[in-house]
Amino acid sequence: MKRVLTGIKPTGTPHIGNMLGAIRPAIELASSGLDAMYFIADYHALTTVHPPKYGAADLKRLTLEVAATWLALGLDPSTTMFYRQSDVPELFELAWVLQCFTPKGWMNKAHAYKAVADAARAAGETDVDAGINMGVYGYPILMAADILAFDIDLVPVGKDQVQHVEIARDIAQRLNHAYGADLLRMPSAKIDEDAQLVPGVDGRKMSKSYDNVIPLFAPSKKLEKVVKQIATDSTPPEAPKDPATSTIFQIYRALARPDEVAAFAERYRAGIGWGDAKKTLFERIEVEIGEARTRYDALIADPGAIDELLVAGAQRARAIAGATLGRVRRAIGIGV
Amino acid sequence: MKRVLTGIKPTGTPHIGNMLGAIRPAIELASSGLDAMYFIADYHALTTVHPPKYGAADLKRLTLEVAATWLALGLDPSTTMFYRQSDVPELFELAWVLQCFTPKGWMNKAHAYKAVADAARAAGETDVDAGINMGVYGYPILMAADILAFDIDLVPVGKDQVQHVEIARDIAQRLNHAYGADLLRMPSAKIDEDAQLVPGVDGRKMSKSYDNVIPLFAPSKKLEKVVKQIATDSTPPEAPKDPATSTIFQIYRALARPDEVAAFAERYRAGIGWGDAKKTLFERIEVEIGEARTRYDALIADPGAIDELLVAGAQRARAIAGATLGRVRRAIGIGV
Repeated sequence: MKRVLTGIKPTGTPHIGNMLGAIRPAIELASSGLDAMYFIADYHALTTVHPPKYGAADLKRLTLEVAATWLALGLDPSTTMFYRQSDVPELFELAWVLQCFTPKGWMNKAHAYKAVADAARAAGETDVDAGINMGVYGYPILMAADILAFDIDLVPVGKDQVQHVEIARDIAQRLNHAYGADLLRMPSAKIDEDAQLVPGVDGRKMSKSYDNVIPLFAPSKKLEKVVKQIATDSTPPEAPKDPATSTIFQIYRALARPDEVAAFAERYRAGIGWGDAKKTLFERIEVEIGEARTRYDALIADPGAIDELLVAGAQRARAIAGATLGRVRRAIGIGV
Repeated sequence: MKRVLTGIKPTGTPHIGNMLGAIRPAIELASSGLDAMYFIADYHALTTVHPPKYGAADLKRLTLEVAATWLALGLDPSTTMFYRQSDVPELFELAWVLQCFTPKGWMNKAHAYKAVADAARAAGETDVDAGINMGVYGYPILMAADILAFDIDLVPVGKDQVQHVEIARDIAQRLNHAYGADLLRMPSAKIDEDAQLVPGVDGRKMSKSYDNVIPLFAPSKKLEKVVKQIATDSTPPEAPKDPATSTIFQIYRALARPDEVAAFAERYRAGIGWGDAKKTLFERIEVEIGEARTRYDALIADPGAIDELLVAGAQRARAIAGATLGRVRRAIGIGV
């Protein structure tokens, strides 16, 4: 059975775009005959989630929210190995080993770093590294450890993340070349071509960084308030409307069944008031997430139970990571 | 009692220059009313000790040789905590945390990296990072973890290493500023102003990189052969000689008692053949290291016993590192 890995970075409260674009597809994938390992990448989040922007307790809260969200949406921890990155210490030792075999030039070319450095250069900064910490610069190596520690076959990624899997492959190849071809399993990127793109309340892609998200498990009242903020134009209520250009419609389409979508489109063409359209969307979201929200609220009320479940997942994960690390240590001549 | 830390990088078979310039002073320091932690930095050595230059088994052998050397020269593992870096996994997790608080600009200015990059620039290289791996680039951060994990007060260093302790201080300060002043203890560099400089067989500073070393625990015959290679001039045997310009004399002076040194200088001024001078030096080295070599040979013949001793040292070290890491994890919001 092929083993598949997905990391979830807890950098914000999950929103509807996350559910539709990432969480549901991943949960479906996990139940499609693969050996799935899904982890909360809390130590990746630490590259950005720290004071002064974030409070000291935020990382813990975000991690808990993400875990509860995935469980509420149907992740089954009895079949999917579900764990916190920080509960697998083997990853950090392995990352150091990989670091010693990673040419610095590869990191200079990594997208995330290059984007920040290029922007600084374009802005006339003399020090293009200003504001970049070594966690941001070196995180493709920790990501390689996340993958290589578990003999992963497939890593589902968006197009912008393919490079990270390639870096993991390249590092693995270096070690295998140095110490023997069977040391580390070569992972492959599984590119998700048609990831669901969901717009946010301003019409741009829903994203925490645009501050335009519809939160997933906010209380009903709060949800309704956010839906009412979706940007519309000043077309009068009775005028026929083009569903294709409406943010409300696009969010609805991402959620609803084809017959519901067709009916909603019909109402657009017949003329619908924006208030009514928003009400329809809000009610549809409520139907979609209502039960999951009840589960979420119960989960988040008992953080101890989530911790227990994640620790149990980490125990299974550590057994695999420990075997890989042992193999690597023996090969390079470390320890007893 | 102040706690002092020294890391020993196992990158070569120990030589006489190591013993006189580093090992003996460190062992004396450990017995001067300090709480001493001395560790074999095997994972630092991995930045350079790997194929194709080194074989896969070399790191293990070098680590063992270094451990046996320090024990043979008098390190007392019942009073000094003596351990292998790789037996303290907490260090690597802590290093990741520190990495997330280390501006990339600090690493650009670190001596070791800057020297290589400047040399590449001077040679007209367009890619100044060619040949540099991320271990070399980022090792000041692992070094900061080595120090900060153990609430270290003092780190004895040569002048060229002061910067590393400063980087550890600066990183600690960042974390303390973000999460509370008591999180990490601020270490100080203890600069060794008058470290013994011992010349090698070619007259330059004895150093593995100059390939001019007198090995410490080589068999007697081999030692004699190396001493005979010490560079001399063609002054005839009977001519008076200036001890100050003689490599043989300088090595002798670093080893012998003042009265012996005075007597040897007298023979120089009276006229001494280079063969006789070398014989005197060889015999003096034999006296100096003979007993230690017997202990070394016994130690190296039983690698299991050395492993046991290092693992026991690591257990004590891990108790301290684990407490520090726990404090850090709670502060940043990681884990349960």
